[in-house]
Amino acid sequence: MQTLVWNALDNSQQNAILARPALGDSAKLSALVSDIIAQVKSTGDDALRELTAKFDQLELPHLQVSQAEIDASEDELGDEIKQAIKLAKDQIDKFHQAQVAPVIKVETSPGVVCELHTQPIESVGLYIPGGTAPLPSTVLMLATPARIAGCKRLVLATPPGKDGKIKAEIRYAAKICQIDEIYMVGGAQAIAALAYGTQSIQKVLKIFGPGNSFVTEAKQQVSQDHQGASIDMPAGPSEVLVIADENANPEFVAADLLSQAEHGRDSQVILVTNSAKQAKACEAEVNRQVALLPRQEIATAALSHSRVIITESIEQSIKVSNQYAPEHLIVQTQNARALLPQLENAGSIFLGEYSPESAGDYASGTNHVLPTYGYTRTYSSLSLADFTKRYTVQELTAQGIQAIGPAIMNLAAAESLDAHKNAVAVRLQHLAKQSTGGTQS
Amino acid sequence: MQTLVWNALDNSQQNAILARPALGDSAKLSALVSDIIAQVKSTGDDALRELTAKFDQLELPHLQVSQAEIDASEDELGDEIKQAIKLAKDQIDKFHQAQVAPVIKVETSPGVVCELHTQPIESVGLYIPGGTAPLPSTVLMLATPARIAGCKRLVLATPPGKDGKIKAEIRYAAKICQIDEIYMVGGAQAIAALAYGTQSIQKVLKIFGPGNSFVTEAKQQVSQDHQGASIDMPAGPSEVLVIADENANPEFVAADLLSQAEHGRDSQVILVTNSAKQAKACEAEVNRQVALLPRQEIATAALSHSRVIITESIEQSIKVSNQYAPEHLIVQTQNARALLPQLENAGSIFLGEYSPESAGDYASGTNHVLPTYGYTRTYSSLSLADFTKRYTVQELTAQGIQAIGPAIMNLAAAESLDAHKNAVAVRLQHLAKQSTGGTQS
Repeated sequence: MQTLVWNALDNSQQNAILARPALGDSAKLSALVSDIIAQVKSTGDDALRELTAKFDQLELPHLQVSQAEIDASEDELGDEIKQAIKLAKDQIDKFHQAQVAPVIKVETSPGVVCELHTQPIESVGLYIPGGTAPLPSTVLMLATPARIAGCKRLVLATPPGKDGKIKAEIRYAAKICQIDEIYMVGGAQAIAALAYGTQSIQKVLKIFGPGNSFVTEAKQQVSQDHQGASIDMPAGPSEVLVIADENANPEFVAADLLSQAEHGRDSQVILVTNSAKQAKACEAEVNRQVALLPRQEIATAALSHSRVIITESIEQSIKVSNQYAPEHLIVQTQNARALLPQLENAGSIFLGEYSPESAGDYASGTNHVLPTYGYTRTYSSLSLADFTKRYTVQELTAQGIQAIGPAIMNLAAAESLDAHKNAVAVRLQHLAKQSTGGTQS
Repeated sequence: MQTLVWNALDNSQQNAILARPALGDSAKLSALVSDIIAQVKSTGDDALRELTAKFDQLELPHLQVSQAEIDASEDELGDEIKQAIKLAKDQIDKFHQAQVAPVIKVETSPGVVCELHTQPIESVGLYIPGGTAPLPSTVLMLATPARIAGCKRLVLATPPGKDGKIKAEIRYAAKICQIDEIYMVGGAQAIAALAYGTQSIQKVLKIFGPGNSFVTEAKQQVSQDHQGASIDMPAGPSEVLVIADENANPEFVAADLLSQAEHGRDSQVILVTNSAKQAKACEAEVNRQVALLPRQEIATAALSHSRVIITESIEQSIKVSNQYAPEHLIVQTQNARALLPQLENAGSIFLGEYSPESAGDYASGTNHVLPTYGYTRTYSSLSLADFTKRYTVQELTAQGIQAIGPAIMNLAAAESLDAHKNAVAVRLQHLAKQSTGGTQS
């Protein structure tokens, strides 16, 4: 890890060390993905089989996982992991249940009632990456809020393993979330199938979940097409920033940095500390712990472009974090909670020495689908709201339209929209007639 | 307006009559807009001046509206319109104030506290279209929630009129919302300036507001660029669907249809009624009223591709509306409120005979920036939440990590993420040592 003293850098150097890495040749990726999407739109299931043969070297007998295969996960797994999956689901459930939005109802003037309601999005696609590790936790993070929101159709897509099967942990997580539609397809082709539908897979309205650069690019492309599907959020490599003071336990800090570094070679890991001594201690601990990891090679690659930034104060550490806008922000300082009001632009914040990122990744109850790549400045952490849409309702009585009608007519006239004005005028005239001469209209 | 009987159509005909019109040559528009954005990125203010000269035939002495010009609006306007603008702001304020999200805090297990917070988006760009009519109402709809959210910088961009000035109504609405940064620039070039910044205009993080096809395309493009800006929502032509039964007042229904039709030639206007008699009466009223409108030509163009759909029942009318997914849904039936639970996919719903669309457009208090073009299926009506971002916080005590730590370790192991497991293990070992042998770590 490169160690830098913040105050020794000028403004442009500071910006440079907090800049995200570029994401490779996007024009080439974009063209490749666009071809895959076109192929799925054109030949549907056949394209899915061909692309799975090409990219996953697998001949699939069928695309959909049968209910028997889903149910079999119960017997394939030991009690310990099943209990852990259930505990995580229970935690996530509690936190997302608390997010159910009440109807907001305001009488803005006598006889003018305005309401804000939410409704579930009818059908949602949940993408679960395959790759080096199966991710049952992501099934829980996506399916639990979708169920609470009341989405009618939950469709899970995930690439099969080398044995042509979906890992039992993923099937089990899906089972306890009552997902009965699981398709063995991954990559850009899975996103295309979810967005446009094929013979076997009915299209969905919105697609959620993380993925590699092909998946991310495919999600962007289908979200730009009116005939495609909405998506949860844009994505980039995963990242963590740790603010530590001199009291932090270097063993904990190092373990947290490494738990991000092992995600992928492109992971961003940043330690910001106001103690040069702490910086050294953490780096020594990182070097000690990384040597023991099975994913040492990946973590080392990530660490090679990661940074230790030494600041003059905790306040300056916070400033650096707010500027970087991290996905995960771990605060290992004395009285971490007191800093909360000053922390900006973070997807999920972990306060104090017993709150590792792993807790949020799996089982604290918060969602682990978070904005990355600086998108925390404007995008939200995944929550129940993302599985619903807000809409408004208004109801005016005769008294209500009489009260605000003249103002509406004035505003409509100022905007040269006479029909808008007239829609109020006909009602006010009708009411005036009623009050003077009976009910003819 | 074309009149159709729903039950006389087969499925594909039903889909066809509810389909949105295509949006013209998107590849050509995309290239034009992409050039404009590149020009603004490259030469900044100079590009803004050149493009304003080209598209608006105006030589601007300065881009920014001075505080004196903003303040002068107070004297340029009569009391009536100023009162109307203030009343509308007050109504919008009441409804959006009620949307302030409380912190949600849940102890998911003893010692595991999860929280959902919101924070304002630091800087927002508010785009106000020019064109045939100035829209002070849109200033209020965007600036009021931005102020309530606590956004630090509110930047308004709007094209100048032929006199090289911004209409007094817009300056006045901005003034009472305490906006002091107003730029005289419109179109795709305004969106580019807001997203990337120029010498005079500092970039913003998120851009809001309606606009023509150039503005909409520019918003899409900058939102796809990591260096650009987020946007409120995708957009298409504005639309209304009215559900009327035999009791509805045809004069009211016709006025509501026309208030949508006058927006633009591409406006969509749909009447759905279970009464053939009502359909005839409404059409006669539309023909009578349209002849009296200053914007008759625009409204007539919109009506030429609009539809009257005759259904067999109110239930079927609702089904048609849910399938169409309208931006505005007006329900003029007996006991309209009782239908609310069955209404899906509408941006804003107007219940009963005294709730015209104009009320929501200006002064009921609801926001008039709504998803169009079928996007109500997944996107939300603009609300306070759009000016903020949600993020989570978690804090675990020693007891908390001891309770859920073993499950986290199991899940991390199942996902082959050893460093994730280790981040918990080092803490549990530390606590075990503390409880057996003092505080060394």
